[in-house]
Amino acid sequence: MKYEPINLEQKFSLFSEQWKPKVIAEMNDYQFKIVKLEGDFVWHDHPETDETFIVLEGKLRIDFRDGSVNIQAGEMYVVPKGVEHKPYAENEVKLILIEPRGVLNTGEAGGDITAQNNIWI
Amino acid sequence: MKYEPINLEQKFSLFSEQWKPKVIAEMNDYQFKIVKLEGDFVWHDHPETDETFIVLEGKLRIDFRDGSVNIQAGEMYVVPKGVEHKPYAENEVKLILIEPRGVLNTGEAGGDITAQNNIWI
Repeated sequence: MKYEPINLEQKFSLFSEQWKPKVIAEMNDYQFKIVKLEGDFVWHDHPETDETFIVLEGKLRIDFRDGSVNIQAGEMYVVPKGVEHKPYAENEVKLILIEPRGVLNTGEAGGDITAQNNIWI
Repeated sequence: MKYEPINLEQKFSLFSEQWKPKVIAEMNDYQFKIVKLEGDFVWHDHPETDETFIVLEGKLRIDFRDGSVNIQAGEMYVVPKGVEHKPYAENEVKLILIEPRGVLNTGEAGGDITAQNNIWI
């Protein structure tokens, strides 16, 4: 039997909307999501979990209340649980998010930009 | 304050040995490990957890008892818990492994090629 890998570029080609994470895989109760980001997000945190960003294309900046981190293609960063952060990308960036199933993109912040959760692609 | 991302290529430049995963980050009780593989591994499984492979360079084949999956750079695969598998790479492949802290590379199989666990780089 031939099993199929998950091709990231192929998955990214299936959508163009930004700030709407799509689930591409699960590992135990964690999900791998891909997302395209551009511009400024809202301040939020995830009180119950760390959150991993792996940047595949472009440059992402994550602002914290006391500083920031710049993450470019080939780099990753784990935002600790409970730490307020705000992603920002001057130009579109493509990345993988890894976090437990059920985590919302805006954490506790809510609002219009809260993406529907658990959308598979 | 300036926070530092984890640069995968820089981390890979720090070692040349194969089949010895190095931890580069933690997310809750999960670890991100990088590893260089070449040749054939042993059949093994991880009875308690899924295991994620993200290939960054080269081509990896994972054999299962009833088939196989080919994973190349830019692709990923999640091996379900309890499923026997055997990684193989004709030429050196660089990849990220993601699994809970404490998982051994050989699962329950043991033997000389069991790598020391929890080695950070």
